[in-house]
Amino acid sequence: MIKVTIWNENEHEKMNPQTKEVYPDGIHNALKKGIANDDYEIRTATLDQPEHGLSEEILNDTDVLLWWGHVAHDKVSDEVVNRVHQRVMDGMGLIVLHSGHFSKIFKKLMGTGCDLKWREANEKERIWVVNPAHPIAAGLPEHFVVAPEEMYGEHFDIPAPDELILVSWFEGGEVFRSGCTFYRGQGKIFYFRPGHETYPTYYDPNVLRTISNAVSWAAPSGAARPIRGHHEALEPIGG
Amino acid sequence: MIKVTIWNENEHEKMNPQTKEVYPDGIHNALKKGIANDDYEIRTATLDQPEHGLSEEILNDTDVLLWWGHVAHDKVSDEVVNRVHQRVMDGMGLIVLHSGHFSKIFKKLMGTGCDLKWREANEKERIWVVNPAHPIAAGLPEHFVVAPEEMYGEHFDIPAPDELILVSWFEGGEVFRSGCTFYRGQGKIFYFRPGHETYPTYYDPNVLRTISNAVSWAAPSGAARPIRGHHEALEPIGG
Amino acid sequence: MIKVTIWNENEHEKMNPQTKEVYPDGIHNALKKGIANDDYEIRTATLDQPEHGLSEEILNDTDVLLWWGHVAHDKVSDEVVNRVHQRVMDGMGLIVLHSGHFSKIFKKLMGTGCDLKWREANEKERIWVVNPAHPIAAGLPEHFVVAPEEMYGEHFDIPAPDELILVSWFEGGEVFRSGCTFYRGQGKIFYFRPGHETYPTYYDPNVLRTISNAVSWAAPSGAARPIRGHHEALEPIGG
Amino acid sequence: MIKVTIWNENEHEKMNPQTKEVYPDGIHNALKKGIANDDYEIRTATLDQPEHGLSEEILNDTDVLLWWGHVAHDKVSDEVVNRVHQRVMDGMGLIVLHSGHFSKIFKKLMGTGCDLKWREANEKERIWVVNPAHPIAAGLPEHFVVAPEEMYGEHFDIPAPDELILVSWFEGGEVFRSGCTFYRGQGKIFYFRPGHETYPTYYDPNVLRTISNAVSWAAPSGAARPIRGHHEALEPIGG
Repeated sequence: MIKVTIWNENEHEKMNPQTKEVYPDGIHNALKKGIANDDYEIRTATLDQPEHGLSEEILNDTDVLLWWGHVAHDKVSDEVVNRVHQRVMDGMGLIVLHSGHFSKIFKKLMGTGCDLKWREANEKERIWVVNPAHPIAAGLPEHFVVAPEEMYGEHFDIPAPDELILVSWFEGGEVFRSGCTFYRGQGKIFYFRPGHETYPTYYDPNVLRTISNAVSWAAPSGAARPIRGHHEALEPIGG
Repeated sequence: MIKVTIWNENEHEKMNPQTKEVYPDGIHNALKKGIANDDYEIRTATLDQPEHGLSEEILNDTDVLLWWGHVAHDKVSDEVVNRVHQRVMDGMGLIVLHSGHFSKIFKKLMGTGCDLKWREANEKERIWVVNPAHPIAAGLPEHFVVAPEEMYGEHFDIPAPDELILVSWFEGGEVFRSGCTFYRGQGKIFYFRPGHETYPTYYDPNVLRTISNAVSWAAPSGAARPIRGHHEALEPIGG
Repeated sequence: MIKVTIWNENEHEKMNPQTKEVYPDGIHNALKKGIANDDYEIRTATLDQPEHGLSEEILNDTDVLLWWGHVAHDKVSDEVVNRVHQRVMDGMGLIVLHSGHFSKIFKKLMGTGCDLKWREANEKERIWVVNPAHPIAAGLPEHFVVAPEEMYGEHFDIPAPDELILVSWFEGGEVFRSGCTFYRGQGKIFYFRPGHETYPTYYDPNVLRTISNAVSWAAPSGAARPIRGHHEALEPIGG
Repeated sequence: MIKVTIWNENEHEKMNPQTKEVYPDGIHNALKKGIANDDYEIRTATLDQPEHGLSEEILNDTDVLLWWGHVAHDKVSDEVVNRVHQRVMDGMGLIVLHSGHFSKIFKKLMGTGCDLKWREANEKERIWVVNPAHPIAAGLPEHFVVAPEEMYGEHFDIPAPDELILVSWFEGGEVFRSGCTFYRGQGKIFYFRPGHETYPTYYDPNVLRTISNAVSWAAPSGAARPIRGHHEALEPIGG
């Protein structure tokens, strides 16, 4: 059983009629339904809850955290960001979706600017699998279309991913590294590009399959927690 | 259920009294017992069987193949090597053990010389986890000793592994990249260093745990098989 | 001074009127002129020369080898392929161009099938820099167009590159990892996609700049040659 | 000509008699002499200077910055750290030495804890080259000893390096990834382990050669600066 917490800032859903129409129960609940699975125990959390719904208790009870944010990155408290960061170091998986590329937690984990090109032009995105050996590609076709979507274009200012799994083609002429894994501390991170708030992307079966695969992949591995600091010699020195 | 085939050249077991004593039923059977698990259906295969026990039928029914060889690399037919290679390209996992670094199949897959330094001096090896987020490190302590063991030292002439998980320290002064993953085609490969034929290495619980973790990790992922060759345009050209 | 040898099978130039028209002196000579530079001492070699122009003497006097081949991959002798392979292991740089993806030497070095999707449809390719920190991207714009070009599409059956520098967008809807580095043995390899034999690609300043950057990057590094085989202990054992 | 700035907190030199004895002019000046070279224009900077000697003007005039710090990481102002970070994003090379693993700038760039095991026991470190194709290994032997040195042991809490070049063996039984490259933004980073303040490590020719190689490698590459933000379509949409 993998314990999943889906975090959504849930702001567009309040302000933007298009988002309300597409995601009447919020992106978080669309995702919850979309990846529901006997192996997952799923809860949701949103910005306006106490501690943004990410108390120490809840995070300690979370194996994999999903993150969707956009207009309210600044409203996420540094304390919660540091808590999530520590949990990733300790083994919690983190799946960062779409505009989450600019979230405090993703920027802190990447150490880079995380900026990119973008355009909202109702265009076609075609996502290609470039690592068909990876479990995150399980059950995916060689390529699939998500349309309409917002464009994100290179150069995406991230460290080279540990594994590059998906690359997007955009109608308007750009490419993008859309499915990227990062091992950090004892945790595993997956960045997944699609998911603009006014499009029904999170009902798309290939998109949901990718996210679900990522949840299974990102669950804690269970290696021993590394010990830091002063360390007695294991072998005689100066013998 | 993961279908596992353990291949062993099974030559030292016939010639070398020390090997006979340590592995009376052969390295393959020690491994079979050691990683036995309700999720694995395990068979063994050896060099002296027809087609080395690796007929097309058996390979097509294998999810993950383990490979132990040493003195008889040359006796493995190129036909079988090519068949195993094709299966890896098509998604079969491959776990190459110890002296298998010089097998035809590993050299073919790596594209490099795969040579290294070695020494048989009954010395101590200490294996360190350098990627504690990886599933192959599940349940392992931060470091564990395998002793006595043969020494393998750098430079190990392989491509940089896609994921470096284990690094060995040797009493005699060398280091070695001992646990390495490689994604190739649709297949996943794990190279794991320990396992000299005269030492009881394959009864060590940490060694067996590593191999068992690798079997689970290396099982086929199930992405769509890529299509090659001429490809019709998906979008209008010259519009 | 970097000693460069440009190898071209030089077959299309004899048979194909379009190639003759675009490259009247052969692709090798177009490249020679295109990357000429005070720091490079450049010679060419072709398939029909004795030992394909790649004698031991010439290879030993080569720092970086460029390789263009297509219709005559099979005519390259295994002896020459093995010789080039050994030189790469010993530190010679290798730049594989376009249809060289299917050359014996590239397949041997990669260990995978190296197949891909392709289409000749006079379409537009746009090449994006995804690693702007890399010396191979020096002086390149963020993206540049090569048109018309042949399409190559994913999944490109190579190991994940050690460094992914360029990704192509194609008018017909595909993407491709177009600029890839691989460290192998003491050698450095760069695969660069564009260069169909009927298009004037090798006169394009961005294409030439990329190839020239790659030559400088791929020159031998000059670390000590690793020693293999039996190795005496550097430290006392069993003390 | 590469413009190099060597930054040293220069605190041990004031307080610690052993450091004063080993580095009477400070670690920064020992490094300056040690890597002096017609291709480098070298200046130094220290913590107690205005803006720690790292004003915008000086950083803008720096191609590669070396960083040695230990007891005074906290005294480095966030403003200067952010300025250095921005310069790395814009292409400046950064070489982080020894205890700099815990500096604000390294932790910010890595996004991880950067902690490790350590021990001061006057022990022997042997550094092995594991990527003999890399320019940072130029002129290095296969392995070299630095002794006495402080021990740093795994797990080193960094992202997997983009290129792992050096691995250390320690007398007391540990291993460490001692020479690591990271591409971040347009900048290149090299972490190099040895250099405890009471040992004459920065007079060792192999250590100096490694640092000098890293300076040449880390110099800005000169690709076009990526453009971020809203991007007009390059191709017609919805055609």
